[in-house]
Amino acid sequence: MLKDLVHRNRSYRRFYQDHKVSMETLTALVDLARHSASGANLQSLKYLLSCDAATNALIFKRLGWAAYLRDWPGPPEGERPAAYILVLGDTAIHDHFFCDHGIACQSMLLGAVEKGLGGCILASINRSGLRRDLAIEERFEILLVLALGKPREKVQIEDIEAGGDIRYWRDEQMVHHVPKRPLKEIILPMKGKTPPCL
Amino acid sequence: MLKDLVHRNRSYRRFYQDHKVSMETLTALVDLARHSASGANLQSLKYLLSCDAATNALIFKRLGWAAYLRDWPGPPEGERPAAYILVLGDTAIHDHFFCDHGIACQSMLLGAVEKGLGGCILASINRSGLRRDLAIEERFEILLVLALGKPREKVQIEDIEAGGDIRYWRDEQMVHHVPKRPLKEIILPMKGKTPPCL
Repeated sequence: MLKDLVHRNRSYRRFYQDHKVSMETLTALVDLARHSASGANLQSLKYLLSCDAATNALIFKRLGWAAYLRDWPGPPEGERPAAYILVLGDTAIHDHFFCDHGIACQSMLLGAVEKGLGGCILASINRSGLRRDLAIEERFEILLVLALGKPREKVQIEDIEAGGDIRYWRDEQMVHHVPKRPLKEIILPMKGKTPPCL
Repeated sequence: MLKDLVHRNRSYRRFYQDHKVSMETLTALVDLARHSASGANLQSLKYLLSCDAATNALIFKRLGWAAYLRDWPGPPEGERPAAYILVLGDTAIHDHFFCDHGIACQSMLLGAVEKGLGGCILASINRSGLRRDLAIEERFEILLVLALGKPREKVQIEDIEAGGDIRYWRDEQMVHHVPKRPLKEIILPMKGKTPPCL
């Protein structure tokens, strides 16, 4: 059931690094993105796949991790992603990518969860460094990096009060807690209508 | 299986307008979005729900439909969406919404398909008109409108050659054909690596 998949699809940042993710798996995930909606059906997104240690290391060093965990510089060796999908925007097709990369990443992450994997969408990227290291042409805008692997951490949703603190945090057992705004905060009343009971 | 859901999740623009979609269903879809990833976990998206005829009519007249179908002004009475979810960005939380609205819409659309419904993400919106009609405060940016209902059309994926024409089209039987770029066009070769066999 989709609800179960959505709930299991947390942002995972610690992985069993030696649990391999194959090129076939990455390709199958991109195929899910390929079959997802795209603004004006332009399909301007392009993908770079990595699942070998050397390329993974090049990508890893260009990423910023979990801004709210100030004392945590990111996963240590052994807990790093086993694979990456780089999501690029092809400016030769269009100069704006709408929210296509969000749609694509959600399809790919849900697909990863179904396969017993998990991941995290990373937008904190040293883009010029990554572009240089992987010889990515200027034509391609680096939009997001999807980090993937077999999750090695527990991530727990915390329902908060409307207007509560949304910064995630980690407890002593390294469980990652993610506060979520309640439905009654995010569904607005429609003019002249009784709001739904939440 | 997710692949099946993703493949069935086409952009539907014609619906059985009298097939009702309840406020409970819309709320359940927003709850899927609520449990999806959000940039810096800010959760700046807010939602307005509509499933009554009067509000639906106000929304419908502010929407632009299927830009590539130049002779088609949008669904006629009887084939219009039975419900809408308006996706707003709350600028009191942040002035940028990353690709959160893409992530949220994909969760909601997949959820709709699982329930035997379907929909379309619309970005061609007369925003000032819609804002006025529904008394949407300036604080909320109108990002997207999700049109929902029980689909009344067949939508077929067409695999095209790399670089082919991506404009969707409709045949005499009103089947909607959507060209999709092939994997070998959208997965780029990684520097110094053999590309995956596609």
